[in-house]
Amino acid sequence: MNREELVKQIFSKKSFLCVGLDIDLKKIPTRLLKEDDPIFAFNKMVIDATAPYCVAYKPNLAFYECYGLKGMAAFEHTIEYIKEFYPTHFIIADAKRGDIGNTSTMYAKTFFEEYDLDALTVAPYMGEDSVKPFLGYKDKWVVLLALTSNKGSHDFQLTEDRNGERLFEKVLRKSQEWGNEENMMYVVGATQGKMFEDIRKVAPRHFLLVPGVGAQGGSLSEVCRYGMTEDCGLLVNSSRDILYPCEKDAGSMEQYASLVAEKAEELQQEMAKELEML
Amino acid sequence: MNREELVKQIFSKKSFLCVGLDIDLKKIPTRLLKEDDPIFAFNKMVIDATAPYCVAYKPNLAFYECYGLKGMAAFEHTIEYIKEFYPTHFIIADAKRGDIGNTSTMYAKTFFEEYDLDALTVAPYMGEDSVKPFLGYKDKWVVLLALTSNKGSHDFQLTEDRNGERLFEKVLRKSQEWGNEENMMYVVGATQGKMFEDIRKVAPRHFLLVPGVGAQGGSLSEVCRYGMTEDCGLLVNSSRDILYPCEKDAGSMEQYASLVAEKAEELQQEMAKELEML
Repeated sequence: MNREELVKQIFSKKSFLCVGLDIDLKKIPTRLLKEDDPIFAFNKMVIDATAPYCVAYKPNLAFYECYGLKGMAAFEHTIEYIKEFYPTHFIIADAKRGDIGNTSTMYAKTFFEEYDLDALTVAPYMGEDSVKPFLGYKDKWVVLLALTSNKGSHDFQLTEDRNGERLFEKVLRKSQEWGNEENMMYVVGATQGKMFEDIRKVAPRHFLLVPGVGAQGGSLSEVCRYGMTEDCGLLVNSSRDILYPCEKDAGSMEQYASLVAEKAEELQQEMAKELEML
Repeated sequence: MNREELVKQIFSKKSFLCVGLDIDLKKIPTRLLKEDDPIFAFNKMVIDATAPYCVAYKPNLAFYECYGLKGMAAFEHTIEYIKEFYPTHFIIADAKRGDIGNTSTMYAKTFFEEYDLDALTVAPYMGEDSVKPFLGYKDKWVVLLALTSNKGSHDFQLTEDRNGERLFEKVLRKSQEWGNEENMMYVVGATQGKMFEDIRKVAPRHFLLVPGVGAQGGSLSEVCRYGMTEDCGLLVNSSRDILYPCEKDAGSMEQYASLVAEKAEELQQEMAKELEML
């Protein structure tokens, strides 16, 4: 999906919500464990409940790989389901890949050809030739880690060089020599608050994928105040808050699904207000 | 496997060779493509041919993931085969993972519990809480990216901070607050030559996993001159040079296997000389 189409989806749905599909079998309703593919059964319910309120889905590969081949089958079924029933939703594989050139080429083939997804998160540590293989695909996106939402983001990402440029700023600046606003986004954690101002100085128009609203403590309004562009420029992710809105076996599956939908709608409503102010 | 056992293997085999199992179906002998699991069939041949000359195997996940579920099954079969027939070989999953704490925990579970491997390569960009979940396992290792073998390593890893400390040095220094010489190694590319001297100033005793000898142009003798510790402290990886020693359909499978063995033995012989000098 290209930028124009993504922006169109955002404004027509009044939402820039991305739902993170990070499934933990210990947290999903017990009755689903009897299904052939419990992860997919849960995802299907979440997707059907949230599709009207979000523009993107982001399965995190760690949560599928940890269940071996069954987990990877669940990942494939989930993607096929989204592509078949909700083809206008943007799909990001959250895999944080990045390796020497010939290896990154294999990863690009996997995520952009085999799975035909829209975007992949990539780690910048290994530099240009680890990122470039992902940039040669039409309407596909690299989502490069810039300033992440976790505590450890302070260990290296904020290190200033001799000229006062911090590592995340160097990543933002340098990577613009490799990709552009049509094929590269950046991960910036919602927990970083006013740092969005600094991000926008270096990358004024790039889309930002923003995790960390909700369970991790980030504020949506702050993210919007400092991070929004005139065509939105944000995809805000929520995972745990939406996926696990209540005690796992509290009610029927229908009740669970409506709580999931409610949580997504709440965020969508906040987002609609932010978009109206543009 | 703990450090003592690893060192014992190295000195008894007179080898610190790690064979990289980065299988590309386009490069393996055509007749293997008829097998049910061509990647595993090729790996089995390579493992049987090289086991006497190496102490470790390093499958790179990218090369399995790119074939979807079949690729991941090949990965599992390969690991099971090594563990059953060559249980004293150290196994490193080259996956370059690293994510926020709860996600890294899932990755650790996958590689150290589900697959029960010895080590995993991890990217440092996200800092402490992305690395620590991998360090809680007895006799398991994190292999943290420090100074990689590729050209892009210069983009960020060499950036100096205000005090003149380069990013890879900060990674080496800082990560020693999280792990130690018994559960953490570092990736340092063989192409970095004399930089091994600088690495050893910050991490004098840690094991280094060294890719980049052979196809990527690094020199084994230079790596040893500047990087060896008194108990070796090196695992030197070779992938393409060993896996693809001749035109893919040049002779019989037996001939191909002996060329693979020869390549591994050549490196082992060079390594034996280096170990004798200790």
